[in-house]
Amino acid sequence: MKKISILGATGSIGIQTLDVLRCHPDQFQLVSMSFGSNVEQAVKIINEFKPEYVAAGSKEAYDILSSNVFSHSFSVGYGEEALAEAAVYKADFLVNALVGSVGLVPTLKAIEEKIPVALANKETLVTAGHIVKEHAKRYNVPLLPVDSEHSAIFQCLHGEQPKTIERLIITASGGSFREKKREELEGVTVKEALNHPNWSMGAKITIDSATMMNKGFEVIEAHWLFDIPYDKIEVLLHKESIIHSMVEFKDRSILAQLGSPDMRVPIQYALTYPDRLSLPSVKSLNLWEVGQLNFKKADEKRYRCLQFAFESGKIGGTMPTVLNAANEMAVEAFLNGRISFLQIEELIESSLNRHQAIARPNLQDIQEVDKETRAFVQSLLA
Amino acid sequence: MKKISILGATGSIGIQTLDVLRCHPDQFQLVSMSFGSNVEQAVKIINEFKPEYVAAGSKEAYDILSSNVFSHSFSVGYGEEALAEAAVYKADFLVNALVGSVGLVPTLKAIEEKIPVALANKETLVTAGHIVKEHAKRYNVPLLPVDSEHSAIFQCLHGEQPKTIERLIITASGGSFREKKREELEGVTVKEALNHPNWSMGAKITIDSATMMNKGFEVIEAHWLFDIPYDKIEVLLHKESIIHSMVEFKDRSILAQLGSPDMRVPIQYALTYPDRLSLPSVKSLNLWEVGQLNFKKADEKRYRCLQFAFESGKIGGTMPTVLNAANEMAVEAFLNGRISFLQIEELIESSLNRHQAIARPNLQDIQEVDKETRAFVQSLLA
Repeated sequence: MKKISILGATGSIGIQTLDVLRCHPDQFQLVSMSFGSNVEQAVKIINEFKPEYVAAGSKEAYDILSSNVFSHSFSVGYGEEALAEAAVYKADFLVNALVGSVGLVPTLKAIEEKIPVALANKETLVTAGHIVKEHAKRYNVPLLPVDSEHSAIFQCLHGEQPKTIERLIITASGGSFREKKREELEGVTVKEALNHPNWSMGAKITIDSATMMNKGFEVIEAHWLFDIPYDKIEVLLHKESIIHSMVEFKDRSILAQLGSPDMRVPIQYALTYPDRLSLPSVKSLNLWEVGQLNFKKADEKRYRCLQFAFESGKIGGTMPTVLNAANEMAVEAFLNGRISFLQIEELIESSLNRHQAIARPNLQDIQEVDKETRAFVQSLLA
Repeated sequence: MKKISILGATGSIGIQTLDVLRCHPDQFQLVSMSFGSNVEQAVKIINEFKPEYVAAGSKEAYDILSSNVFSHSFSVGYGEEALAEAAVYKADFLVNALVGSVGLVPTLKAIEEKIPVALANKETLVTAGHIVKEHAKRYNVPLLPVDSEHSAIFQCLHGEQPKTIERLIITASGGSFREKKREELEGVTVKEALNHPNWSMGAKITIDSATMMNKGFEVIEAHWLFDIPYDKIEVLLHKESIIHSMVEFKDRSILAQLGSPDMRVPIQYALTYPDRLSLPSVKSLNLWEVGQLNFKKADEKRYRCLQFAFESGKIGGTMPTVLNAANEMAVEAFLNGRISFLQIEELIESSLNRHQAIARPNLQDIQEVDKETRAFVQSLLA
C-alpha cells in the first residue's frame, strides 16, 4: 500500500489523482492533502478518503473547515509551514499539484525526507530547476513527471540510454486561439481564452495554454527533468493532442506516446512507475475513429511566450523566475479583467528586459527576484 | 566486433543490412553470406566485405561465382546444406533475410549454435512458429525482429512487462491498390502491383503487400514473437507508413514507433539491441513536413488474405503452412503472368478449404504439408 500525499487536492490534477486512487483502493491510500480555498470540495474529499493531515490555504479556509464535523479525526494546519508538513506527513509518495511558485518548498522538503515526488507543479522546475535537480540527485530521490507531455517522454525513454537521445519533440495543441492569427487576438475575452479545445484544466493553465507559455514552461521543465540542452528540444503543433510527445534517438527512430486526452493516464503512470495498472475508466484510443492527426511548425513570432521561454531558459539563472512571476501576475490581471490578452506578453517582455540574471541563484535569490518581479508588474498595473 | 552472417545478402534486406555494416566498420564484420542467383551482385559484396564463407543458391550460381577471381580466399558451397552452414560459419549473429520457407532450417541451426537471429524471413515464424519459439526458448537464444512493424513493437515493449500489454496495433500501408475498391482489382497488371507507394522491396513481398497477405503474415509473426493471442492483435490502415506499429498497455497508454520509411533503422536496431548507434544517412522525420497522418479500419472483406491469415493463425498447426505455401505458389504464378491478381486469393482459399490442420506439427509434417500444398496449387495451375 503506497501512502500518498496530494498537494492541491481540490484542483484539476488533484481531483484526477484522487480518481486514480479511487480505482485502486488496494494499492493507494491518501494520508495527507492540501487545498487552497475550496472548503466544500475539501470536506467531500476528507470524508471519502479520510486523510490524517490536511493543510488549508488560508486562516479563513482553515476556520471554515474546522467548523465542520467529521467522522474521523485528523490534524489540520494552514499557511506555508502546514503545506510543507502536508507534503511529507506519513507519506511515501508526494503528488505536488500546486499551482505557482508556492510549490517549491514542499518539493524540496519531500526530497529531503526521501519521498519520491510526482511533479504537476511546473513552476517548481521552471524557477528552481537546478536546485530541485541537485537536491533530488543528492538525496537520490526520483522526480516523476505528471504533465502528459513529460510523462510521454518519460515513457518513451524507459529502458533507453540517455546518450542515445537525439531530440525531444513536445507536442502542443495550440490552445484556445490556435485558429486565430496574431492580429485577431486584440479583443479576445477571458471567456474565450478559458475555452480550451482539448483539455479541461484550471483557469491559470488554460490561459498559459492559450499564450503557449504553458508549452514554454514545459520546455524548461523538460530541460531539467531529462537533462537535455534547449537546442535539442522542439515544439510541434498537433491540434488533436493525441500524440502527447516524442523522443527521437540517434538512429532516427522516434518513439511516441499516444492516448485519449485524459490526465489520469500520466498521473497513474507516475504512481505505478515502472509498473502499469489497468485503467478501464479511460477511453481506449482507436486511431481509425480519430481518422487524422495533423502537425504544424510552432511559429515563435505567433507565440511570443514560447520564444520568451526558450530565451529565458537558455540564459538561465533567475531569468525563468522572472518569466514565471511576471506570467503569474499578468495572467491573474487578465483573468480579473484588468489587462487585455496581448498585454500578458507585454508585461512579461518588460519584466524580462529589465532583469539582469543572477547565475546559479539560491532559494533566497529566487524568492527575492520573484517578489521584485511581482512588485514591478504590480507597478505597471497600478 | 560482432561477426555477422547474412542469408539472402543480394536481396533488398540483405543489401540494406550491408549498408548498416558499411556505416559501422568498427562494430560489424561480415563473415558469412548466402545469395540466390544474382552472382554479379554477390561478387561485388564479396570483394567489398571479404566474407569467409559464401553459399550460392544453385549449382549454376556456384559455378559462375567460382569462375571469378577474388583478392581473398574463402569457402564456397551451394544447396541447402551450404545455406545452413552459411548461417553459422564463424558467426555470432545471423541476419536471416531469405524469402520463403527455405529460411526455416538455417534459423533452427543458428539457434542450436546459440547464435542470436534477426528474422526478416517471415515464413520461418509463419510456418513453424511453435518450433522456432520452443527452440529459441530451449537454447535461450534471442529472436530479433527486422520487419519495421515488429521492430516498432519490439522497441515499444523494451523495458515493459508482457502482462501489461493490452493489444498490438500493426499498421499497414494498404499496398499498391489501396485506393482501389475490390471490384477494381479484376484487371490489374503485374507492373501496377509491383508499384508500392511507400516502400521499395522485393517482388514477392510487394505483391504480398498488395494482397495484404504480408500483413497477415506479420500478424502470425507477431503472435509468435511477442506471445500474444490473435484477438489482441489489430491491423490499422495508415497510408503514410510513418507510424510503424504500436502497443496499447492496460493503462490505455499507447507507445508507437515512427520514422521515415527506411529499413536500415529496424535492421540496425536488431544488430545493436538494446543499444542504439547513430545512423546519419537516414532522413530525420519531421512531422510538420509530413503534415498529416491518416488512419482507417482494415476491412477484411476488401483484404481477404488478411482474413485468411487471422483464421489460419487461430486454427494453427499446419494451417499457416498451407497459407504460406499456397501464397508462394500463387504469387509466383501471378508474377509469371499465369493468373490474375484476384486468383491469388482464390488459389489460397481453395488450398485452405481442403486442408485438415495437423496440431503441433513437427518439421517433417510441415515440409510434407508444404510440398503437398504446392503440388495441389500446381495441379490447379496446370
